[in-house]
Amino acid sequence: MEIKHPPNEEHIDNNMVKMEVNLDDTSGELLGYVMELLFTAGANDVFYTPIYMKKNRPGVLLQLLCSMDKLEKMKEVLLQETTTLGIRYYPITVHRMQRRFIKVDTKWGPVTVKQGISNGKVFQSSPEYEECKTIAKTHYIPLKKVYEEIWKLL
Amino acid sequence: MEIKHPPNEEHIDNNMVKMEVNLDDTSGELLGYVMELLFTAGANDVFYTPIYMKKNRPGVLLQLLCSMDKLEKMKEVLLQETTTLGIRYYPITVHRMQRRFIKVDTKWGPVTVKQGISNGKVFQSSPEYEECKTIAKTHYIPLKKVYEEIWKLL
Amino acid sequence: MEIKHPPNEEHIDNNMVKMEVNLDDTSGELLGYVMELLFTAGANDVFYTPIYMKKNRPGVLLQLLCSMDKLEKMKEVLLQETTTLGIRYYPITVHRMQRRFIKVDTKWGPVTVKQGISNGKVFQSSPEYEECKTIAKTHYIPLKKVYEEIWKLL
Amino acid sequence: MEIKHPPNEEHIDNNMVKMEVNLDDTSGELLGYVMELLFTAGANDVFYTPIYMKKNRPGVLLQLLCSMDKLEKMKEVLLQETTTLGIRYYPITVHRMQRRFIKVDTKWGPVTVKQGISNGKVFQSSPEYEECKTIAKTHYIPLKKVYEEIWKLL
Amino acid sequence: MEIKHPPNEEHIDNNMVKMEVNLDDTSGELLGYVMELLFTAGANDVFYTPIYMKKNRPGVLLQLLCSMDKLEKMKEVLLQETTTLGIRYYPITVHRMQRRFIKVDTKWGPVTVKQGISNGKVFQSSPEYEECKTIAKTHYIPLKKVYEEIWKLL
Amino acid sequence: MEIKHPPNEEHIDNNMVKMEVNLDDTSGELLGYVMELLFTAGANDVFYTPIYMKKNRPGVLLQLLCSMDKLEKMKEVLLQETTTLGIRYYPITVHRMQRRFIKVDTKWGPVTVKQGISNGKVFQSSPEYEECKTIAKTHYIPLKKVYEEIWKLL
Repeated sequence: MEIKHPPNEEHIDNNMVKMEVNLDDTSGELLGYVMELLFTAGANDVFYTPIYMKKNRPGVLLQLLCSMDKLEKMKEVLLQETTTLGIRYYPITVHRMQRRFIKVDTKWGPVTVKQGISNGKVFQSSPEYEECKTIAKTHYIPLKKVYEEIWKLL
Repeated sequence: MEIKHPPNEEHIDNNMVKMEVNLDDTSGELLGYVMELLFTAGANDVFYTPIYMKKNRPGVLLQLLCSMDKLEKMKEVLLQETTTLGIRYYPITVHRMQRRFIKVDTKWGPVTVKQGISNGKVFQSSPEYEECKTIAKTHYIPLKKVYEEIWKLL
Repeated sequence: MEIKHPPNEEHIDNNMVKMEVNLDDTSGELLGYVMELLFTAGANDVFYTPIYMKKNRPGVLLQLLCSMDKLEKMKEVLLQETTTLGIRYYPITVHRMQRRFIKVDTKWGPVTVKQGISNGKVFQSSPEYEECKTIAKTHYIPLKKVYEEIWKLL
Repeated sequence: MEIKHPPNEEHIDNNMVKMEVNLDDTSGELLGYVMELLFTAGANDVFYTPIYMKKNRPGVLLQLLCSMDKLEKMKEVLLQETTTLGIRYYPITVHRMQRRFIKVDTKWGPVTVKQGISNGKVFQSSPEYEECKTIAKTHYIPLKKVYEEIWKLL
Repeated sequence: MEIKHPPNEEHIDNNMVKMEVNLDDTSGELLGYVMELLFTAGANDVFYTPIYMKKNRPGVLLQLLCSMDKLEKMKEVLLQETTTLGIRYYPITVHRMQRRFIKVDTKWGPVTVKQGISNGKVFQSSPEYEECKTIAKTHYIPLKKVYEEIWKLL
Repeated sequence: MEIKHPPNEEHIDNNMVKMEVNLDDTSGELLGYVMELLFTAGANDVFYTPIYMKKNRPGVLLQLLCSMDKLEKMKEVLLQETTTLGIRYYPITVHRMQRRFIKVDTKWGPVTVKQGISNGKVFQSSPEYEECKTIAKTHYIPLKKVYEEIWKLL
């Protein structure tokens, strides 16, 4: 699942759109796949919410965030893969922090940590999930222990 | 949608079972219908919960309550109408209050009120939804106003 | 429950609005009724989401989609039937597929199938729920079997 | 938890914004605290929705409503207290009813009732929760009985 | 909100019961209060799940865990404060870890850390939320920073 | 993600247990990983439900189904990877349909279809998700079209 990254400096992005689709006859099985396709097609984020629809139907609200120029691409995926006959959207503003990737030396080797920076100040440091997961699996350690070790080094 | 009523005195019912099915490839559209069928087949209650299943699938947990002697009937509906290959269940105890139905005279005519009684004490009084709804629709009044008027008479 | 249909050609509708209300003291019983009223009053869609509100309250987010000219009508229903003191809304764009209704001959007689078309290509074919439900009930067949039979004919 | 009140006459407020953040690595424990901070910082409302995020993650969508001039204050809290690297927002319109506070004399003393008024007509009357709660606790009465008594006086 | 603690050694507790109630006409406002009362009355845990009930109603499933000897006390609260006419329950087994409370010296003074221990091995260390919250508020520091500092000392 | 299959004939399995854990300080990121580990360790199913916990916390209820002999293995994973100090469980009965795997010849080659059988009657036919997904990706076809083609052949 390739995930698109927006540019790297702190900025206000006025070029984004949120798209929404209500689904009451697309199965959960298909929706797991659709999320993957939308990320591959360039969505910045995709997420589902359980909703209560008419006629006692448990449905799903699909929401995605993408840049304006991805709008048609997203529509195409949604049309082809879901059962929707209507796709709605509206512009949103996104304030993005600066993101910086640093390497931290751990007893299992270097691990990437993503830092969120605003006005030059580091607000957030997150060890990269996939790397920590690989360490956890390779060394038979609980994943939460891997995070804890790395947090101590920050 | 015919809804089965248990017997009317306060009692501990040790003859009940909860059934559960996880569904990730039955659509919301079908599930609205399945709920109706299960009530008709004698379930005491049926309800859905949104669940997160494997492979990023938004699924639905179907739960129903019925008496032991309805178990096979429920299984039949679930097998025929959903996509499940496994149905799980476990016994539960239900403490039921005494239920009594009284008539209250309102400006729109008599309305049934269901009372819940425990140890001879009225704990709960609920105007019957379908009757209040009919009044609201016939007289063009907000449903909540109908309830408010009846509560004042209790 | 009469459901309003938008016009029938593929088009971008810039005349739509999404309305939202947060509810923490309207009961589920009332909300089932409110959904019905909003559809009758001309909403294109109405749906509920569970939300976590202040003071540990499980609440409900009511969302509805309607055309701009229905805005005041919707406000009226929401004010009269729910407990809200504030109704929020924002314009949305809706890309609607062309919808076409065809008849398919089945062993139970003709059934309507709704087709979604984009750029002249059929993307989606959905047998009409209410007709399939009637067949299922009349012929004592699982609803999913009715759908399966019709899908084979498409 | 101090909760900001908007001005008191019925009006259309075009100065509001909805902010949203998706969270998959902020714990529920922290989120209970963050809601409190956002209210204190002047949010008009804050609420959470469960969402299904990528890689099988149960996440939380934080939404808040505030006036435009609170935007930077809210961003600051979100950056410092959650793990987000991006905050999105869009303008919304809010139709607010007139709110009026009256006193009702009950057997436990006077209780404040908040009334919602539109076009001079009272649509909604809600006894103040905190006062009713205090009565319930002081007099050992079920809270729903306190409400019922007050509704009879309205 | 006083929260009951079970005994302190690792053990299998066969004396516990889970109680459940489905609610479609108790408001969110009341449910926030009911949770508090149930904890005060000795519940080990209380939590709500959104459910889809009949007639298109968004409802709430109340679940609580308590020891067998609290059963009647819980029933009393549920009867008096909610609108239920039936309370269901079933026995459950709980494997509880040993819990130990240690003090950690931080730059803001000593902080309690709760440790979970199984077979003599520490599996889990959690700084006490209320103490960390007080530090965060007193020193104007983000709560997540308080946790991070303490985790480094463990 | 290796998923354990129960034996293949229709049978009533009285050897199963449901385990439950409430989590308010394990992040969604970790929970995605934990689900994977529990399946690998032999759980028959694992799923999450959003819950409302004390102190305004959006939490997660982890539920899993496993055979009695996997109980200790599951506990070990839960203890090591989550933040729980208590794990609860109760026995359940599972009625399992007979499962049969057949091959269907499609224009893209043979595809496995899983059939659910009860009393010798086929109730359910599901094309295998992973195989259909591979076809969809290889041939650039919507996944729902792949399913539709296969359903026509059944």
